[in-house]
Amino acid sequence: MTTDKHLQAKDLDIEKEASLTSGSDAWHLQGVPDQGYPEYMITDGPYGLRKATGSDVYGSVPATCFPPTAGLASSWNPDLTYQVGQAMGEECIQEEVAVILGPGINIKRSPLGGRNFEYYSEDPVLAGHQAAGLVDGVQSKGVGTSLKHFAANNQETDRLRVSSDIDERTLREIYLPAFEYVVKHAKPWTIMCAYNKLNGVYGSENRWLLTDVLRGEWGYQGLVMSDWGAVHDRAAALRAGLNLEMPPSASDHEVVEAVRAGNLDKDQLDRMAQGVLDLIEKAKPAMSQKGYRYDVEAHDQVARQAAQESIVMLKNEDGVLPLAPGEKVALIGEFARTPRYQGGGSSHITPTKVTTALDSFKETGMDVDFVPGFTLDEAPQDQSLTDQAVKAAADADKVVLFLGLPEDAESEGFDRTDIDLPTKQLDLLRAVSQVNDQVVVVLSNGSVVSVVDWLPQAKAVLESWLLGQAGGQAVVDILTGGANPSGRLPETIPVRLEDNPSITSFPGEEGHSRYGEGIYVGYRYYDTFNKPVAFPFGFGLSYSTFEISNVRVEKTGPNAVRVDLTVTNTSGIDGAETVQVYVAPCASKVGRPSHELKSFAKVFLKAGESQEISLDLDERDFAYWSTAMNEWHVEAGTYGIEVGTSSRDLVSKLDVDLDGDGLFVRLNSNSTMEEWREDQVGGPIMKSHVEGGKVPLPNDPNTAKLFDSMPLASVITLSGGDGNSVVADMITDYQKAIEQQGLTGASRGSE
Amino acid sequence: MTTDKHLQAKDLDIEKEASLTSGSDAWHLQGVPDQGYPEYMITDGPYGLRKATGSDVYGSVPATCFPPTAGLASSWNPDLTYQVGQAMGEECIQEEVAVILGPGINIKRSPLGGRNFEYYSEDPVLAGHQAAGLVDGVQSKGVGTSLKHFAANNQETDRLRVSSDIDERTLREIYLPAFEYVVKHAKPWTIMCAYNKLNGVYGSENRWLLTDVLRGEWGYQGLVMSDWGAVHDRAAALRAGLNLEMPPSASDHEVVEAVRAGNLDKDQLDRMAQGVLDLIEKAKPAMSQKGYRYDVEAHDQVARQAAQESIVMLKNEDGVLPLAPGEKVALIGEFARTPRYQGGGSSHITPTKVTTALDSFKETGMDVDFVPGFTLDEAPQDQSLTDQAVKAAADADKVVLFLGLPEDAESEGFDRTDIDLPTKQLDLLRAVSQVNDQVVVVLSNGSVVSVVDWLPQAKAVLESWLLGQAGGQAVVDILTGGANPSGRLPETIPVRLEDNPSITSFPGEEGHSRYGEGIYVGYRYYDTFNKPVAFPFGFGLSYSTFEISNVRVEKTGPNAVRVDLTVTNTSGIDGAETVQVYVAPCASKVGRPSHELKSFAKVFLKAGESQEISLDLDERDFAYWSTAMNEWHVEAGTYGIEVGTSSRDLVSKLDVDLDGDGLFVRLNSNSTMEEWREDQVGGPIMKSHVEGGKVPLPNDPNTAKLFDSMPLASVITLSGGDGNSVVADMITDYQKAIEQQGLTGASRGSE
Repeated sequence: MTTDKHLQAKDLDIEKEASLTSGSDAWHLQGVPDQGYPEYMITDGPYGLRKATGSDVYGSVPATCFPPTAGLASSWNPDLTYQVGQAMGEECIQEEVAVILGPGINIKRSPLGGRNFEYYSEDPVLAGHQAAGLVDGVQSKGVGTSLKHFAANNQETDRLRVSSDIDERTLREIYLPAFEYVVKHAKPWTIMCAYNKLNGVYGSENRWLLTDVLRGEWGYQGLVMSDWGAVHDRAAALRAGLNLEMPPSASDHEVVEAVRAGNLDKDQLDRMAQGVLDLIEKAKPAMSQKGYRYDVEAHDQVARQAAQESIVMLKNEDGVLPLAPGEKVALIGEFARTPRYQGGGSSHITPTKVTTALDSFKETGMDVDFVPGFTLDEAPQDQSLTDQAVKAAADADKVVLFLGLPEDAESEGFDRTDIDLPTKQLDLLRAVSQVNDQVVVVLSNGSVVSVVDWLPQAKAVLESWLLGQAGGQAVVDILTGGANPSGRLPETIPVRLEDNPSITSFPGEEGHSRYGEGIYVGYRYYDTFNKPVAFPFGFGLSYSTFEISNVRVEKTGPNAVRVDLTVTNTSGIDGAETVQVYVAPCASKVGRPSHELKSFAKVFLKAGESQEISLDLDERDFAYWSTAMNEWHVEAGTYGIEVGTSSRDLVSKLDVDLDGDGLFVRLNSNSTMEEWREDQVGGPIMKSHVEGGKVPLPNDPNTAKLFDSMPLASVITLSGGDGNSVVADMITDYQKAIEQQGLTGASRGSE
Repeated sequence: MTTDKHLQAKDLDIEKEASLTSGSDAWHLQGVPDQGYPEYMITDGPYGLRKATGSDVYGSVPATCFPPTAGLASSWNPDLTYQVGQAMGEECIQEEVAVILGPGINIKRSPLGGRNFEYYSEDPVLAGHQAAGLVDGVQSKGVGTSLKHFAANNQETDRLRVSSDIDERTLREIYLPAFEYVVKHAKPWTIMCAYNKLNGVYGSENRWLLTDVLRGEWGYQGLVMSDWGAVHDRAAALRAGLNLEMPPSASDHEVVEAVRAGNLDKDQLDRMAQGVLDLIEKAKPAMSQKGYRYDVEAHDQVARQAAQESIVMLKNEDGVLPLAPGEKVALIGEFARTPRYQGGGSSHITPTKVTTALDSFKETGMDVDFVPGFTLDEAPQDQSLTDQAVKAAADADKVVLFLGLPEDAESEGFDRTDIDLPTKQLDLLRAVSQVNDQVVVVLSNGSVVSVVDWLPQAKAVLESWLLGQAGGQAVVDILTGGANPSGRLPETIPVRLEDNPSITSFPGEEGHSRYGEGIYVGYRYYDTFNKPVAFPFGFGLSYSTFEISNVRVEKTGPNAVRVDLTVTNTSGIDGAETVQVYVAPCASKVGRPSHELKSFAKVFLKAGESQEISLDLDERDFAYWSTAMNEWHVEAGTYGIEVGTSSRDLVSKLDVDLDGDGLFVRLNSNSTMEEWREDQVGGPIMKSHVEGGKVPLPNDPNTAKLFDSMPLASVITLSGGDGNSVVADMITDYQKAIEQQGLTGASRGSE
């Protein structure tokens, strides 16, 4: 981004240069004002602007509170997140904020993750696409984003110190791909490093992550800043590739000393400081629009539409929803009056206004009787509230019961310890359902809650997550049929917390969190090992009905595929279907999930309308990360292309034969008898050595099976030969054959 | 063991010394015959002697085939394993074998482990006690054992190369304690290193394991030999503490060169070679008993008794067992005629004789009609065999149906891929159970099989594992009431394979096996996370009934407890109850299993007899391995003492308050606000700094919770203070206070 016209960090004196690599205060960049580089503001806010005011850590100027990520993620609609992003960008311009800190795209490893409400999904493809839309939207306005928290920041427990201990394949396939996708496709201006360590190295000091992978492999050109207080060693952070420490810690002198002592290359400091100047340069056009005012009401409407699309209808028996105009409705639950619409911690913003479901219901003119039912604090249930609720329920045609997690149940800073709704709320549901069997439960929760035990007591359930300031209106839109539910679960709802595969190792202890379940996160675990779930990943109902038909799979390359299909709205109601494409692996040398989401499309269809859609899968969509090859690897074989409306509602499964990428691991002195036999080049070489009597081939099938797993040299030695010498000869033959045939295998040395 | 009278390795020339550290051939030690150190033989055989003959890899001289470990483990009787060990020792003397290679005590991490039939348990306490009995028994005869495979050799897949990737706490609590117990209590003459790597380092080259832990911490004085072909680098192995390479690989010259090149200390070679001379010295008395003959028939009787105690009765409804004298019995299943009584691979021995169930039944004089029912190969079911079996079943009062795993289903060298009985056997059971509802299933299998799906079709089930050469007789003893079943499950029988916690990471891939489930192996997982199981760990029925009463818990030290109780045989039949003591942890800073077996006692009681028993628990029985402290650590708190007859049949739960060991981790510059507040010394220091205005204390409870998880220095800095400086002052105060109070915390540096 640097051109000759711009200020070059290397031309500044070293003290000034060092100072650029930390903020001027907690919420401002250090600039060079006298040379036209202002000290722009950067603020929190993955789902709305949190421009801090005064001394209170969490006070902020009013801004539109869009649905928190847990909600927005359920829209499965990057076009929508783009719109939200545009609106947020406009608010930044008005408030003269150059960079808004978000989105957060860490994987929801455990339902207990305290910050799950700020994150998208248990799946990196969904998280990446949704976040890319938001980043594109904000940045289309000339305002920067900060993709966070890079990387593997999946828990709050001991979050400033814990080491996320993750094997590389799991990192590459689960915890990095959403970052990779957004970096490559949306080019976020900044990235925020994580507090935690990754395999023992702090996020702020991890050169492999910040430089080798991010800039080297992914081609990232932007700035990397620290999470607030994540820097422990300025020089180490700069060496690793961290441009900016936030907030400043009065340690600029350490940077200068490190350069002078030879512990930090001046070139590296130049690069890091230049990143700050480049960022300021990029922000100038938008920050120059003084007096810009965004349309508060229009943004509230964006928030309302986003909230509508974020609601997931989990159940709707006997058409209890939508509510019909003449029906008498008992509206129960304090949340209807005191909505829980956002999460706690650094994302917590001051909304421009808040619409409650109660207010919105009143506006519909429906016959609605509100009773609070319970309090949001931890006080024991007041029997009179129960009695009042039961009476209201008994007198009504239908009950709309708002249940959810109180505000202090989930926040930045701590993880949850269970996933259950408060007992008093569930007791109330039971009491109410005994006098009225037309109960609609509306859930308000930032992270997933258990539903199986009480589900039979509800005829309908809306998972409305946290919906932002227009959430009350959006819920009423859905309940009354003013809007058609189209949200889909971005994470599995498990039967019980203990079913989650991270249960044995989350959140770890004594400074370490072992990612023991590896790649089997979320539906990758539940589906692969046939575990029952309450509701599968990708699930969500509509008032419409849809049909997916005419699914075709066509190869567009040796390892690429196009999926064509028709989606039809077979009902009389306009609505949206979300088509999901999963790839099932070929028979593989490594363990792979039974299937993985690789593409999706939300299709809006008028009543009766049909649409042809086409989804492309490329080589990467079929690959796994081979640690042995240190590469993405596509094996040759038959893959399954699954089309469905959730990970467990598949309407089509077609096979496709892929050529594979031709990568292979070269045989070496430690290769087993089986590896020799099955290698296309090594097989014939071993055969000739068997025939020559140099390699033993036992007749007994059990001994043969035993030998198969042993390095060939060991087999020969145990049988009385000189294994090392025979195998050395064979390797020589092998290398020659490889060269003659022009094969280029991934070689990982001699072991 | 070295005395002045003995030959000193260091006095030999270096070539000879080097040669001592590998065998003279595949089954003999290198000795110094001209100085009175013969080249003694060492042979395979954890459940009987496998003295190799001739050229066939698995040919051997006849020896008593005692129950393989999978069976013997179920006896829960170290006195019995001692008797078996004595008998094995006698056979070694006759065959002039100085060391018998076993027992194998690796933990059954997954039901799929191909060598599970050679191992004891999913629990290290049971494995350690059972194996110690065997080692003591063999060595009481002056013959050595080789405890194997040290360590973490829990799978066969890629077994010569794979790295078992295990965190230290898991290693210390699950995979090492059985070795530790046997080393400390039974002092095995030799230990065999494992083929696999442990955290990247080969078992044969792992100095931490072979020297630091084994000799340093545990005080081991014996010899360490390699598994057959496990040595990759002679000098590295000798440096690590491996005395003996087996079989020899003609690389003695490398040892000499390494010493001359300074890559191997002469002192270390002296120690390693001396270990071989010491071993020969120890074996001399027994090996000098030329012409010794063991009592073949008596040993067969030991095998029979051991087999009786190894049978676990899983189910016995309506008293279908024992069979009554006059009943007409249909004996179905090829296993009754062709018993599967041992496993494959290096443990496979040539028995002195084999008794089949069919022969034994004939000897009882009962009215028994045998039909094979199925073949043991993989051929499709022959309908005529089914018809014949159904006819026999229809004509009988009761059916005894032998089902099991064919011989090629499990062996050294490969892991299983499912845990199901062959389909044709289960089809036969269904057909038979439809014409006769008095079906007794007798299982023959080295590793666990799934039972839930077919269990309702059987009135009784005997899990008879692999029982050795007298197994047929033992099964008939149990079936007819000639013996009373007393075996207990040494591992959980899961509902489905997928319920096992290692399912996401076993057996790994591309050279690594991640032990993702950590300490939650077997019942530690199922019980802690309330997972349904088919049959719990420790379970087993008897023809007798028992009562455990008058359980008392008494503290015998600050962190030690004695459990006293009464066991009564409340039936008219002599029998044995196995009392199990589990410890439930106090509220802990780390994740701990809901309970763990710490002691057990098999109590033989005549009809109506009562016995007082007493079981001691010491400090270690309450400890977890703290990685932060690098120590076993007992927290102060209330622990549960559970007495029961399986991990899920607990008859008593009593609390005991322990003092704790007083160990603590010192506060440091990275300690969190919560750690400061809760520290007995640091708490008051922080309080005074809060009062002095140096440490912020937010009023908002959510902010307070957020701050709690952050290092105190970060909290102060984020609030505008100079965190590093304030905390440095506080640490100074803290250190002073610690010294003044004379506290000695485990300190792990400044981080």
